[in-house]
Amino acid sequence: MKISYEVPVITPRSTALVQQAWAIWDGKVKPQLSLGRLEHLAVDIVSMRESLAPQLGTPCLFLFASDHGIVAEGVTSSPREITWQQCENFARGGGAIGLMCAQNGIDLQVIDMGVAHDFDASLGIISQKIARGTQNFAHQAAMTQEQCYKALKAGQDVVRKSYRDGYMVVAFGEMGVGNTSSASALMASLTGYDLDRCTGKGAGLSEQGLIHKRAVLARALKFHGKIQDPLEALRTFGGFEIAAIAGGMLEAAHLKQVILVDGFITTVAALVAILVAPAVQDFMIFCHKSGESGHAALLDHLGATPLLSLSMRLGEGSGAALGWLVIRQAMDLYLGMNSFSGAQVTDSVELLKTQGVNAHAQI
Amino acid sequence: MKISYEVPVITPRSTALVQQAWAIWDGKVKPQLSLGRLEHLAVDIVSMRESLAPQLGTPCLFLFASDHGIVAEGVTSSPREITWQQCENFARGGGAIGLMCAQNGIDLQVIDMGVAHDFDASLGIISQKIARGTQNFAHQAAMTQEQCYKALKAGQDVVRKSYRDGYMVVAFGEMGVGNTSSASALMASLTGYDLDRCTGKGAGLSEQGLIHKRAVLARALKFHGKIQDPLEALRTFGGFEIAAIAGGMLEAAHLKQVILVDGFITTVAALVAILVAPAVQDFMIFCHKSGESGHAALLDHLGATPLLSLSMRLGEGSGAALGWLVIRQAMDLYLGMNSFSGAQVTDSVELLKTQGVNAHAQI
Repeated sequence: MKISYEVPVITPRSTALVQQAWAIWDGKVKPQLSLGRLEHLAVDIVSMRESLAPQLGTPCLFLFASDHGIVAEGVTSSPREITWQQCENFARGGGAIGLMCAQNGIDLQVIDMGVAHDFDASLGIISQKIARGTQNFAHQAAMTQEQCYKALKAGQDVVRKSYRDGYMVVAFGEMGVGNTSSASALMASLTGYDLDRCTGKGAGLSEQGLIHKRAVLARALKFHGKIQDPLEALRTFGGFEIAAIAGGMLEAAHLKQVILVDGFITTVAALVAILVAPAVQDFMIFCHKSGESGHAALLDHLGATPLLSLSMRLGEGSGAALGWLVIRQAMDLYLGMNSFSGAQVTDSVELLKTQGVNAHAQI
Repeated sequence: MKISYEVPVITPRSTALVQQAWAIWDGKVKPQLSLGRLEHLAVDIVSMRESLAPQLGTPCLFLFASDHGIVAEGVTSSPREITWQQCENFARGGGAIGLMCAQNGIDLQVIDMGVAHDFDASLGIISQKIARGTQNFAHQAAMTQEQCYKALKAGQDVVRKSYRDGYMVVAFGEMGVGNTSSASALMASLTGYDLDRCTGKGAGLSEQGLIHKRAVLARALKFHGKIQDPLEALRTFGGFEIAAIAGGMLEAAHLKQVILVDGFITTVAALVAILVAPAVQDFMIFCHKSGESGHAALLDHLGATPLLSLSMRLGEGSGAALGWLVIRQAMDLYLGMNSFSGAQVTDSVELLKTQGVNAHAQI
């Protein structure tokens, strides 16, 4: 059976309500724009959701997991078994992301995209397993075209289901020993940035380990040659979880869900999605600038200002789970904070207007 | 009656448990140091609280309010009445800080240090009123020495009471039309930085308004001449709320409470406290880099890296209330996240050790 993948149609986010949203902020009992980034966040979300009073409900965090053939080249500090062990841990509510989701009111779904392990069904891990890990991209493409399409569609499917279940905010995280190698190669291939700038220590390589990783990736990039098409680059260097995230993001933007982007690997998946359909970025909130080198440059490349910068370099969706706290606070203030008139406080901007002063010029 | 003020004795925070705290983090099921700043935060708090498993409970946010004589010089965009109006609003749970405290599980206390208004007792605003605003420091010192001591002691008193009530985390915020002028003059006086670098638009001055504010402050600084002593500078340029914050912070550090520092004005109060007793900084967490100019330079001056940088410039303790979300998450992870052994996940650092590799050099 021939598998094909059709990129969902994405309408850029609407600006229709933006002015009204700013007017709501300006009526709140505070100096204009004094809540800074929080105000911009809420206006962005009004615009994504096409509602002046968007209720975001509970976010769903998809944690896509997969193994990587490239680990055969000795590019990681962690043994491969950590991928499946951590999936089981997360599914039981453990690990950083299990705890953060529980504390922050986020529903967590762990999706097996291609872990080299058979999970017990009782764990509730969603199976979309394509293979037991990708091929080793040092010597061949990581995926066949069919596998790549399958992975994109798997991401699309879980997002579509979340939409039917009523989720309006979707966060993306990942687990996969070796996936910083995949992400760095993809980033270098798609941005043209120097490979060294795109490559960091992952979970904890030594200096020597990093030198080896860079050499392996440099050889692989040379072996495959220049690749223009983002989906072809994804197929060549990517992971099943990275493809699923890209596919999931494209579908989420199609459905006008708010997309919470996590760290380095998730941002590389976002880069693929953006190159495929630039309007997808309209629905993205970049939650955290990771400590993994390459991420800062990639965010700059995308013109994205991350909400937080706390030197985390964990993945799993941890940056998105933390960013959600800021987003929720912004929306609580936008929706719930009282106004000058409600609070019986003098609106100094309005006061100036009655005195014939152009208030917006003043402020 | 002669009022005097004695600086509380502050013992620098203990390093006794630091190594053990790092060992706890390293046992968690994640790559070493991959939670970045969150890990440092928890270790700092272990050290402040001298406990390996510190329970922080509910924070208390003190919102000290006062009016300022300097407003007579036309240095603000807001009418003076906003000080008392906002205090009433906050006391009723309104405004940004009222809502943030309610959402984030923080107890809010509004303290009248010198607002030019008589509050109805039913509002629950704590009265420590010293006068109906400070004097205009363009022409004379803002406070008498007695007033300054009284304000420092008022801050000390409310903090001491919070300690008796069982609060282990205290956050400081402020409300006072004109208090960025006070704070900028104090900062310039105490750091020697160029006044323009210390002075911003406050709640919303125009460019022209800012030029006027800088001119007023420059004349005032020249009028009073060079002042070495931090408490003398506080008396000359400060506000009752700024003095109360400084006094409160010094007492909190004496009591080994965790101090959440808010934005520009609170950080200037922190500067005064640090110059009086440097060890107080050991107990401070700088929560947010404000959009008010001067704050970034002041944080650099103190060698402080703020947790958040969201361009807010509201005061009220809003940056501290938001920072608390990150701190609470850090502590939840430190106390609650499972370990490699508990999660049955391979500890790759331990694995390397058994292979004779120095794990810490590796990571």
